[in-house]
Amino acid sequence: MAEIKVVTNMLRSNEELTAQNRKLLDDRGIFVVNLMSSPGSGKTSILEKVIFRMKNDLQIAVIEGDLYTSKDAERIGVHGVPVVQINTEGACHLDGSMIKTALDALDLDRVRLLIIENVGNLVCPAEFEIGEDVKITVLSTVEGNDKPLKYPLMFEKSSAVILNKIDLIEFTNFSKEEFYKDIRSLNAKADVFETSCFKDQGIDELCEWLRNKVENKLNGGM
Amino acid sequence: MAEIKVVTNMLRSNEELTAQNRKLLDDRGIFVVNLMSSPGSGKTSILEKVIFRMKNDLQIAVIEGDLYTSKDAERIGVHGVPVVQINTEGACHLDGSMIKTALDALDLDRVRLLIIENVGNLVCPAEFEIGEDVKITVLSTVEGNDKPLKYPLMFEKSSAVILNKIDLIEFTNFSKEEFYKDIRSLNAKADVFETSCFKDQGIDELCEWLRNKVENKLNGGM
Repeated sequence: MAEIKVVTNMLRSNEELTAQNRKLLDDRGIFVVNLMSSPGSGKTSILEKVIFRMKNDLQIAVIEGDLYTSKDAERIGVHGVPVVQINTEGACHLDGSMIKTALDALDLDRVRLLIIENVGNLVCPAEFEIGEDVKITVLSTVEGNDKPLKYPLMFEKSSAVILNKIDLIEFTNFSKEEFYKDIRSLNAKADVFETSCFKDQGIDELCEWLRNKVENKLNGGM
Repeated sequence: MAEIKVVTNMLRSNEELTAQNRKLLDDRGIFVVNLMSSPGSGKTSILEKVIFRMKNDLQIAVIEGDLYTSKDAERIGVHGVPVVQINTEGACHLDGSMIKTALDALDLDRVRLLIIENVGNLVCPAEFEIGEDVKITVLSTVEGNDKPLKYPLMFEKSSAVILNKIDLIEFTNFSKEEFYKDIRSLNAKADVFETSCFKDQGIDELCEWLRNKVENKLNGGM
């Protein structure tokens, strides 16, 4: 009994903080992405590519979640957009309290698109809402096509799935046929993008998708 | 107060079960590896290579940990060694209770080396002992050389670190110099192996290391 009660309280607290964060963001019409994947799938590289293409005609801000270091925030900072690094100091996912702290550090009146890069982890981040409009999950070809069925929750909940490092697929036994079959069995509606940051492939399509979502939200729809 | 109490109890329960599992394994002189990494770093592929080389002169058994599916156990089963699949159904790491169930399903009198492949996750599995003699962490070159400092605990606690997919390093910006510098700063004693399952590279050295550990434990040392 005691265990159940504590877990419920913890989740409610995260839900309350997340609801507050969400209201703050919705009131300003800011479109929010929760970007998730395993460590090393290429979240930060994709983000760099997106920022490079979009920053001149769209106000973008980034929240970086990592256990330790500010390596990712430094990479984003180079591109001249506002970025806040959260260090979870061992915790395996971001939560409402951490996001609240990060939002306090941003000038939200100058943001239209907020991308939150979650801790690299294919399991835990999927379980916690952090005020996002959409979740996007990145899988890289070198991780293997068996991952969606082995770690289904994140793929089930995502509005878009990015298959990254598509340029390396020829050096792996990754089956695109199996991948699409499994993604469709988990999530019939997700949009799928095939990208390569090295070859600069698929990024335009992703930017177009994001731009539509940002405009939709600004116009009061989702 | 309530929260702290519950967490303490949970950990104590895992510690107690793990201590029981450890005694069971120690009494039989079975050497136990806790094999950890991100999803898709190549744990199962390395395991297949090791089993293929060692199974004829060493009794090996495997416990596979995954959230869902029995894909990995099926891959191991092909090689004709005893294997038990644990499905955590969403939990992000293995624990003492799950290992106890799996040990009950194995004929431990016929095992000298037990390899436990943990859930693919660079964060949570590092925090839980599961009765192992050593932890081994796998990192693949395609994940990037920044991962040890971003996810330090697993690397700090490991007796060996495997740098896998070394054949793909030329297609990445992975810096071996940075990698070794960071590993040494976290863990001066860890043995490091560079492997490629595609090119069949570095596996002999890893097998030799495992063989020595197994014999050491059988002879009463560690």
